[in-house]
Amino acid sequence: MKLVSYGPKGKEKPGLIDRDGKLRDLSGVVEQIGPDQLSPKSLKALSKIDPDTLPKVKGKPRFGVPFQGVRKFLAIGLNYSDHAAESGLPVPKEPIMFFKADTSLCGPDDEVMLPKDSKKSDWEVELGIVIGKKAQYVSKEEALKYVAGYCVVNDVSEREYQLERGGSWDKGKGCDTFGPVGPWLVTTDEIKNPQDLDMWLDLNGKRFQTGNTKTMVFDCATIISYASQFMTLMPGDIITTGTPPGVGMGVKPKPRFLKAGDVMTLGIAGLGEQKQHVVAYKKPGK
Amino acid sequence: MKLVSYGPKGKEKPGLIDRDGKLRDLSGVVEQIGPDQLSPKSLKALSKIDPDTLPKVKGKPRFGVPFQGVRKFLAIGLNYSDHAAESGLPVPKEPIMFFKADTSLCGPDDEVMLPKDSKKSDWEVELGIVIGKKAQYVSKEEALKYVAGYCVVNDVSEREYQLERGGSWDKGKGCDTFGPVGPWLVTTDEIKNPQDLDMWLDLNGKRFQTGNTKTMVFDCATIISYASQFMTLMPGDIITTGTPPGVGMGVKPKPRFLKAGDVMTLGIAGLGEQKQHVVAYKKPGK
Repeated sequence: MKLVSYGPKGKEKPGLIDRDGKLRDLSGVVEQIGPDQLSPKSLKALSKIDPDTLPKVKGKPRFGVPFQGVRKFLAIGLNYSDHAAESGLPVPKEPIMFFKADTSLCGPDDEVMLPKDSKKSDWEVELGIVIGKKAQYVSKEEALKYVAGYCVVNDVSEREYQLERGGSWDKGKGCDTFGPVGPWLVTTDEIKNPQDLDMWLDLNGKRFQTGNTKTMVFDCATIISYASQFMTLMPGDIITTGTPPGVGMGVKPKPRFLKAGDVMTLGIAGLGEQKQHVVAYKKPGK
Repeated sequence: MKLVSYGPKGKEKPGLIDRDGKLRDLSGVVEQIGPDQLSPKSLKALSKIDPDTLPKVKGKPRFGVPFQGVRKFLAIGLNYSDHAAESGLPVPKEPIMFFKADTSLCGPDDEVMLPKDSKKSDWEVELGIVIGKKAQYVSKEEALKYVAGYCVVNDVSEREYQLERGGSWDKGKGCDTFGPVGPWLVTTDEIKNPQDLDMWLDLNGKRFQTGNTKTMVFDCATIISYASQFMTLMPGDIITTGTPPGVGMGVKPKPRFLKAGDVMTLGIAGLGEQKQHVVAYKKPGK
């Protein structure tokens, strides 16, 4: 099942993508897709709906984050050994965890805005895990049972804020619009093996990142089990799992950071594609 | 005004503390105190209510986090120079920021549970700032206008997870029950100067931490202004601002970490007191 939220920002409706790739309206069935709809039981109930019975949505509406009520937006760092190498950092012995701010969340095709005076904003295509069931101290063997589904995440990162401003990485990871998620939340029935998914990212039509989730240092089950030792994972939590090589920071001989006017397109096999126009800092409204 | 949530976990009602220190029920006025009730306008409306017209609450109910719907739970590290010294870490050149997980939040007198196999859990009395108005790129001069009020926070920390497990501090700061907040959200009309508040923490009746917010490295206005350059702060965000010296990690000749049976009591002038019983890890229920 491919679940989505569609419509203007703050007024999204729930939907699903049918087998022909068409958007169907779910708002007659559920008010929204939120943490309560991500449980195994709720997803099973949703999966019994015949998409042909749902109204087709006309036009090409905007997609939002595929579900409402994200709680934690947790992220794993340096989880592909070749990306660690291009970052000039050692492969971690255990998962590096950090948080992206809730206010970084945005739809998969929303504009990415450079922070004021930012000079080192960068891209990172990543596989996002969406938790469907409360997870505390779960084993690796059991971990994937706690997953509602998967999604594409662009873990947009300001490298100066992340690496040169002291303290944790959280400063460079949570800027507004630095967390495009979607277009779809793809439930686990469609993703039998999350460790064999091709992923890619183009900047202005040129390929920069090519990878596959099979080269993760710590696989999804390990990450979920590990994180659940430090904190309770709740339905609606997203864990984004690190990026393969090819980020702007690693471009030789000189890093290539984001500029206004750039276009990022990125995707993961079976999980859909994102496209973001990069815009300059705009003074916030009231 | 001293705003509170009271009642059993998950079923808290809004309340306020009257001038005699008695708890009054606000549930006839607002359904809950959430982000929408923290705006300057909403707080002004609440402040016009004569507490004598509100029903008195009988007995001694539990207090929860004083308001519902906390979004970010942001924290500042090493913000007292003498605490940096006892931690063996340099005084930061700019604020260190990290996140505490949403699932660490609990009431001011709830039990603090040691994580499974934890050996280095520790205490930190801190001043918490509660944001009342959306803040983006605000100046130091304007920063305090974005504050709804202040509260006591115990930034409970597992030092091994924080410092010895690689990556950010987030691992050791967000364990379940590691974020007692309250008892009160004290609005800014009662706290004219957040930079002159005495604070203290006792373990089993013995004083360990004594401090005053005047010795912060970065004051509240600086912290809010700084954080708002990296992310939008929203009503209901909490920023906890660092701890004075006297944590368990700094005890000589040998650190003193938390054990089941310990009792922490802590408080800040004008903001009330917390009391937490420390309990051993309990296997989570379903």
